Amino acid sequence: MSKVRVNSFSVSLDGYAAGPNQSVQNPLGIRGPELFQWFFSTRTWKYMQGQEGGSSGVDNQWAERGMENIGAWILGRNMFGPVRGPWPDESWKGWWGDEPPYHVPTFVLTHHPRQPLEMKGGTTFHFVTDGIDAALQRARDAAGDKDVRIGGGTATIQQYLRARRIDELHLAVRPLLLGSGENLFAGLDLPALGYRCTEHAPTDSALHILLKKET
Amino acid sequence: MSKVRVNSFSVSLDGYAAGPNQSVQNPLGIRGPELFQWFFSTRTWKYMQGQEGGSSGVDNQWAERGMENIGAWILGRNMFGPVRGPWPDESWKGWWGDEPPYHVPTFVLTHHPRQPLEMKGGTTFHFVTDGIDAALQRARDAAGDKDVRIGGGTATIQQYLRARRIDELHLAVRPLLLGSGENLFAGLDLPALGYRCTEHAPTDSALHILLKKET
Repeated sequence: MSKVRVNSFSVSLDGYAAGPNQSVQNPLGIRGPELFQWFFSTRTWKYMQGQEGGSSGVDNQWAERGMENIGAWILGRNMFGPVRGPWPDESWKGWWGDEPPYHVPTFVLTHHPRQPLEMKGGTTFHFVTDGIDAALQRARDAAGDKDVRIGGGTATIQQYLRARRIDELHLAVRPLLLGSGENLFAGLDLPALGYRCTEHAPTDSALHILLKKET
Repeated sequence: MSKVRVNSFSVSLDGYAAGPNQSVQNPLGIRGPELFQWFFSTRTWKYMQGQEGGSSGVDNQWAERGMENIGAWILGRNMFGPVRGPWPDESWKGWWGDEPPYHVPTFVLTHHPRQPLEMKGGTTFHFVTDGIDAALQRARDAAGDKDVRIGGGTATIQQYLRARRIDELHLAVRPLLLGSGENLFAGLDLPALGYRCTEHAPTDSALHILLKKET
């Protein structure tokens, strides 16, 4: 059965999934990249970058698991790029260059319509203006038997969690403090929404956590 | 040099240090005791309870470290007991029976004066009505060369963190969600207050974290 998943979502001890002052220069906010140090060292990440090497231990197992069996992605608009308001033109094509790391249909939540954008390597960005459930339906249709992965950012994941649309969520809790930015847990009562921790695996770089929705 | 410390302070993934609905029956709130499972299994805890056995690994090392070299404790009133407002009488003597686990002078923050309360085993509760700095000064004087440990609860630790009075804080982050209750991180920007994570040790039961104030 096809699932709706979040994977490799990194948060600080104090719950921040991005640092403050996100910008073109700092897409993850100030100090945001520190959240992903566990990931950047893995073989999975290196492979995604066309590089060799990288770690193959527990961190990599979680990273790898996150990339398996995905038929479609959903991204919030701020994760797609820094442009706000109506699209001034078609020039912004995401943070990832000509060949984004998705390789499947990828649905971008936005209030402003835009034509689909076909990239190299199988990624096509579709811009969805009629809300999270419409985006999810289109992603499910595109994914077929495979899973839908919600990439982020924080506000998008929070919306899908509140609507109880996410089946499982892998968090990587990092041993650092950010203090401000985008807080995953703020205003969310996850147990009340039916989520509980069903798996955990500590490594030297992160505490990996699997949250599942009870049916 | 004498330090002001917090130790073995357990928080959920979503930052809660106590569950909701604290009461005489549930001093740690609903599901609060799950936060302390890592601690209840240690030799240090068993010893404090007059029992034998218990684990002696990394969890116990952190628990043990928390009990070393303490010359005085500070507790918030809600950690001392469920009584609110003026003390109706002298009958409430804490949660811990005749012989509390402190064994040194212990300063209780309250707005309502009360005579000192001498218990068995070296614990004397002193009730301090003139604020957190007055309590800290009295605790420092009582502790001499030893450290002052702030026991909690969450609101008390938050106040001392905001005032930058805490030198180091050991958190045990537990792989579970509480969703509501007393949140340690809410409204606190710890890096802005000068705190950073200087040590971390994952075990199967908790991610142990040491936060230190940069001088």
